[in-house]
Order: sequence, then structure tokens, then C-alpha cells
Amino acid sequence: MAVNLAPPRADSLLSISGVRLGVAEAGIRKQGRRDLLVVDIAHGSRVAGVFTRNRYCAAPVTVCREHLADKLPVRALVVNTGVANAGTGEAGLANARASCAAVAGALGTEARSVLPFSTGVIMEHLPVDRLVAAVPAAVADLRADGWADAAAAIMTTDTVPKAVSRQVVIDERTVTVTGIAKGAGMIQPDMATMLGLIATDAAVAETTLRDMVRFVADRSFNVVTVDGDTSTNDSFVLVATCTAGNPEIVGEGTAEFTRLAECVLEVAQILSQAIVRDGEGATKFMTILVEGGKTREECVRVGKAIAHSPLVKTAFFASDPNLGRILCAVGNANIADLDPAKVTLHLGDVLVAEKGGRAPGYTEAQGKAVMAPAEITVRVGLGRGIENATVWTCDSRTTT
Amino acid sequence: MAVNLAPPRADSLLSISGVRLGVAEAGIRKQGRRDLLVVDIAHGSRVAGVFTRNRYCAAPVTVCREHLADKLPVRALVVNTGVANAGTGEAGLANARASCAAVAGALGTEARSVLPFSTGVIMEHLPVDRLVAAVPAAVADLRADGWADAAAAIMTTDTVPKAVSRQVVIDERTVTVTGIAKGAGMIQPDMATMLGLIATDAAVAETTLRDMVRFVADRSFNVVTVDGDTSTNDSFVLVATCTAGNPEIVGEGTAEFTRLAECVLEVAQILSQAIVRDGEGATKFMTILVEGGKTREECVRVGKAIAHSPLVKTAFFASDPNLGRILCAVGNANIADLDPAKVTLHLGDVLVAEKGGRAPGYTEAQGKAVMAPAEITVRVGLGRGIENATVWTCDSRTTT
Repeated sequence: MAVNLAPPRADSLLSISGVRLGVAEAGIRKQGRRDLLVVDIAHGSRVAGVFTRNRYCAAPVTVCREHLADKLPVRALVVNTGVANAGTGEAGLANARASCAAVAGALGTEARSVLPFSTGVIMEHLPVDRLVAAVPAAVADLRADGWADAAAAIMTTDTVPKAVSRQVVIDERTVTVTGIAKGAGMIQPDMATMLGLIATDAAVAETTLRDMVRFVADRSFNVVTVDGDTSTNDSFVLVATCTAGNPEIVGEGTAEFTRLAECVLEVAQILSQAIVRDGEGATKFMTILVEGGKTREECVRVGKAIAHSPLVKTAFFASDPNLGRILCAVGNANIADLDPAKVTLHLGDVLVAEKGGRAPGYTEAQGKAVMAPAEITVRVGLGRGIENATVWTCDSRTTT
Repeated sequence: MAVNLAPPRADSLLSISGVRLGVAEAGIRKQGRRDLLVVDIAHGSRVAGVFTRNRYCAAPVTVCREHLADKLPVRALVVNTGVANAGTGEAGLANARASCAAVAGALGTEARSVLPFSTGVIMEHLPVDRLVAAVPAAVADLRADGWADAAAAIMTTDTVPKAVSRQVVIDERTVTVTGIAKGAGMIQPDMATMLGLIATDAAVAETTLRDMVRFVADRSFNVVTVDGDTSTNDSFVLVATCTAGNPEIVGEGTAEFTRLAECVLEVAQILSQAIVRDGEGATKFMTILVEGGKTREECVRVGKAIAHSPLVKTAFFASDPNLGRILCAVGNANIADLDPAKVTLHLGDVLVAEKGGRAPGYTEAQGKAVMAPAEITVRVGLGRGIENATVWTCDSRTTT
């Protein structure tokens, strides 16, 4: 069912010097599948992350935030699938900490140097004994070329593993970026969690890496939407192992920052778009460009108003060029001084609405032609400024 | 398909002295159905309204706002179904004004004393000539007992007409309140408009009536949701004909205000709940009580976060007591300092979650028992204050 989404070719995934990945079968929810991932991160690496804004955040998210705030170097990640360890109260926190302690023991580091991640069913307790028992096997499996297996290990309702690598030359050094992600189904929200892990061998200062993870998240994982719900477990972590030999990148304003950030962003966008393409029930992939805003934030708001509208999503499923639904969503985006007379709407390259109404030359046949393919671009001009933003989403089915 | 919703008994609808209603076949979109309603409002009446906040508001909404701002007495309403006259630019405004002028001409009043309302397909032009041609027939049909026909005339995707009457004694005078409404389908948003008209014979000062319409709307039409989209045409108008002989109600703080407002609110809640019960595809009616908030507004926000979540709505359709989805929605309601450890969740009378996790005594069998009936109450305690709010919504189907 995934929309134009192929699994990554195994030989396309590039190792990141300083990162080793190992998987094991812990039997957390199902027997006979590799559901535990341990990532070993070499000394000297920097790690930054962004996490769900849901107030009911999962126990591992709370523990990640604590451990990152500690400022101890992060030396490992532990990721399980099957149980999200969310809505589990104090016991959940203890289980997340026990997972960290088990990995720390096996790797000879401290529990507070380990970041935990969980994805799977909500409000069930993590069978932490089974997880802990499988840690030695995952550690024994650690290898630099473990990315493809890692991508498979973190899947829940995903039908296709999500992983990609890119390279860029910075200060005459080739820098590599490799990432994996898993996404949220539309209808199976027990499993609705986005996890993203991207690593690079580039040298980046710690505060700069924190700026970069936010810059990238705001243009990738934070602007894709399948069902509109922010899960309790959403996490995106960026690791820089600083082994590529480039001069350390310090500060957001530099050309080197931009080069690396664009490469990381490309990886993050491919991964986050893959989550949308794999959205449960998705038959179409929609790119929503919003231009001419006063701020990027209001452009994102308009894009998400369109992407979250069940009426728009079902119209796209039905290949129905329902302009009213899109304009209605624009009008609902809470821009108090929006002037509908200045708003323009394109479906693909076809101008369909302007001046508060249907464009004079537009015919429904043109609209239907644009809506038929599996990849559709909607472009909204707000006529208020020079900012823009892009949001990606999928359609959703109707039953009538 | 409507959930526990019967049409009103014709003899249950009480006339309001000073209000006459007439319908006619204008052939606006379909032949052979009464699609035009004219409401004649006696001299001395007061009228107040609230309208969609969608920035792409329909032409009749713009004209209603203009005419109400004029402070001329409102003497008539003209309502058509079939075409919403939304997304129609300048031509749409001209057509809405022409509708008012036709009714004003037939009734011997001014166009600016007429309020226009339209519901139906968006982004198509109103066939105003056909509407104007049918006005004399609608005016010839004016009668005090026209409420049932009026409720039928304004339907679009509604399967059941929505109308109700109530009475209350104020200052030893029996006061009558009668209302009609039409609602929005889930999947047919071309028609997605809420119209509500409530009239009373009570005497109410004009500014007080404006306070009352907002008070009532915030606890009825503004807290029901079918698909989460605010339409371009949503309108709710409250008419007080001042013929009941009660001393004029002035100011929000009086006991008389409270008595009348509660009666109007009961009518408005029955009508707005009927819209939810008639939501396209609805199989269940959900009452979401949110208690213990710091403000009523944040309680509404939490209730709507639950009601708008497609994941919650599909869980209810499937009779699946998916606590995670509900708590996840609570966590997404943007209450920055919400403490999940203080949140409680009841399904019906069963305590299902507390202290950030599942309630110790809760079993899934209890949850399934609560979720089975067509009427379900969800109760969320925020543990932050003394305010509360109620939101009503319906389930939505899944295809898997």
C-alpha cells in the first residue's frame, strides 16, 4: 500500500565511523522477530535530540530528556519495539532506567550515558526482564554495517524499512550522513510513534548540533503528518561522531553549517516523507507548499490546517478536486487578518482559485487531471509576505 | 444511520408570536423540493447572531454581519439550500444582496433589514434569478406554524429534520422558545454548514440578546463537532419578538436572564446534539466531560482535542476502549503545565486511568462493556481547578 516507497538497497547504506548497531530478539511482544536495537556511540561523539510535545510523554522520553540534560557524553542508545512504555507511570520510568542500566553494564559505561527509546502499544508495561536478557545478544551483534537490520528492527506497523545515506564535502573532507526512521500508521495508533535516528561523522560543536537538530526537525519530521496526532513517544536524535576530520563546525551562521544541515535535512526529509508514504491506508502523497506568508510559522499553520482536514484528505483519496474544502481549511488556520481576496490556490500547475473565488479559466476537468496521480502538489499563495513552508501528508479513505 | 434521533412530532413545535415562516420550491439545485425559506419577523423584535470564524466566510455571512452592524431592525430572514454562495467573490456578495432585496420588496421593508443564509455546495454561484422568482410563493406561504416545514426546507445531507420547542415561566409569564437547525455531514463537506435559528417571544434588550447568543453558542453549537472543520457558512441567529409580556430582560446578571438563557440553551443543545447524531457515518454519540480545569476555555480545548482525534473517533467506532488514544489527545491539547500524574479518565462510570497510567482495578472487559452502547460518556479530570466544559461528537468509521 505504500505510495512510491521502496526499501533501501542494502549496499546504499553507508557506515558512520564511530557508530555500531546490533539487534536481537527479545520477545517483547512477538516471538521470532528482532525487536531490540542497541547503538554504540564512540567516545568523543555529540548527541542532540528533539522529543514529542505531548504532555503525556512516554517514560523513555522523560528519561532521554533527563540524561541529555545531565551533560554526560551519550555513549549508547537502546530501542525496543512492541511496547511503547507510555502511560505507565512510575513503573515505566523504572523500566526505562533499567533498560539503560543493562546496556550500560554490557558496554562498560554509565546508565545515564544511555538514551532509551520505545515504540509499540501504549499503556502496557515493558517486559523489562526479557529486554534485559536480550541485551548481551544485541551487544554481541554490534557492527558498523548494521543500519539495514536496525531499520527493520524498529518497525511496527511500517510495511517498508526506512533508511538512507548521503554524502557531502565540507572543507575538503567527505562527510557521511546515514539515518533510519519508523513511522505511524493511520489507523493503528497503538503503534503511532515516530522515531528518527541520524548519524554523521562530521565534527560539530555540541550547541551547534542542538541548533541543527531543531532546524532539521522543523523542516522534516515536524512538517509531516499522517493522522494529525502527536504521539507520546516521538523522538528524533542526531549523532555527530566527529571522526571525518573536518574542522569542527561552530555556530549556525557558517557556510559549513549550511552545507551539513542541508545534507542532514535531505536525509531527514526522505525519512519523514517515507513515513507519510507508508501511512496506513495511504494511496496518495501530497506536498503542500504555502508561500507568501508573513512568517514561516503561519505558513506551517496553513499547511497543517489543509493536511489535517479529514475533508481534504478524503477528497484527495477520491481524486476529487474539491477546492472548497481546501479553501475552507485555509480559512480555518487562525490567521486573523488573512485577506481571502489575495489568496491564490494551485493544484499542480493549474491556478484554480483567486480573488475569493474560482479562477475564471479553471475547469473541473483540469482539476481531476491533477488529482489523478499518486503524487499531488497543492500550492497556496497567501499574498501577505515572503515566507514559505512545505508540509507533506497522505490522503485518507472514505467509506461512502 | 442517525444515532437515537427521531424527527420532531409536528404537534410538539410551538409557534412564536411575531414569527411567520414560509417555504417554496426555487429549484436552486434540485427540482421538486422546497429549498427556500422566508422568515418574517414582527416589528419590535430584536435579533442577534454569531457566525463562522472561517476567514473564507461565505457571502451571506458577510452580508449578515453588515446588516446587523447597521442597527436597522431586522424584519426578515431568507434561507436557501442547494448552493452555499461561498468562495464566490464579488458576484456572491451581489447575489446575497439581491436575495435580500427580493424579500424586502415582497414584504415592504428595506433590503438591509433582511439577513441572508445559504447552505449547499461551495464555490458555485447562486442561481439568484430562480431564488428571486420563488420569493413571492414563500411569502404567500408565511404562517406561524411553519416551523416543521422550515426545518425540512433547510436540510442538505441531514437525514432527519431538527426542530424543538420548550417553555419556561419568567416573571409569571409563559415564554416559548422554538428552534430549527441543520447540520454538516462527515464526508459530504460540500454541504458542510451549520445553520441554527432560535426564536422566543420573550422581551430581551438588544445588547442582552447579543450576550445571550454568545453564551448559548459557546455551550451548544460551538462545542459540537462532527469532522472538526469550521464551515464557511456557519450561522446561529437568536430572535426575540418581545410579545410574551414579560418585563424586558436587561443584563446578564439577572435571574430572568439565567432562566431564559437556560431554556434557550436547552433548545440549542438539543439542536446541536442532533447535528452530531445525524453526522454522516455516525454510529455512536459521545459526550466528553472535562472537569477540574483552570479555565473553561482549556476544558473546551481538551474536549475538542479528544473529539477531533481521528484515532479516538475510529476507536469509538470499533468499540475499542483504547485509553492510550484518549490520553494522547489530552496530552496534545497544548496545556503547557498539565501534570499527567493528576489526570483521571473515566469511561462511563469506570475509572480507567490515573497517576499517569492505567488504573489498577481496570480491566479491558470493563472498558469494552462501556464502549458497546451507542451513547458513551468520557470524563476527563484535569486536577488543576474548578472549571468544566462538555463537548459532543460522534465516532467515525475505519476501513480496516
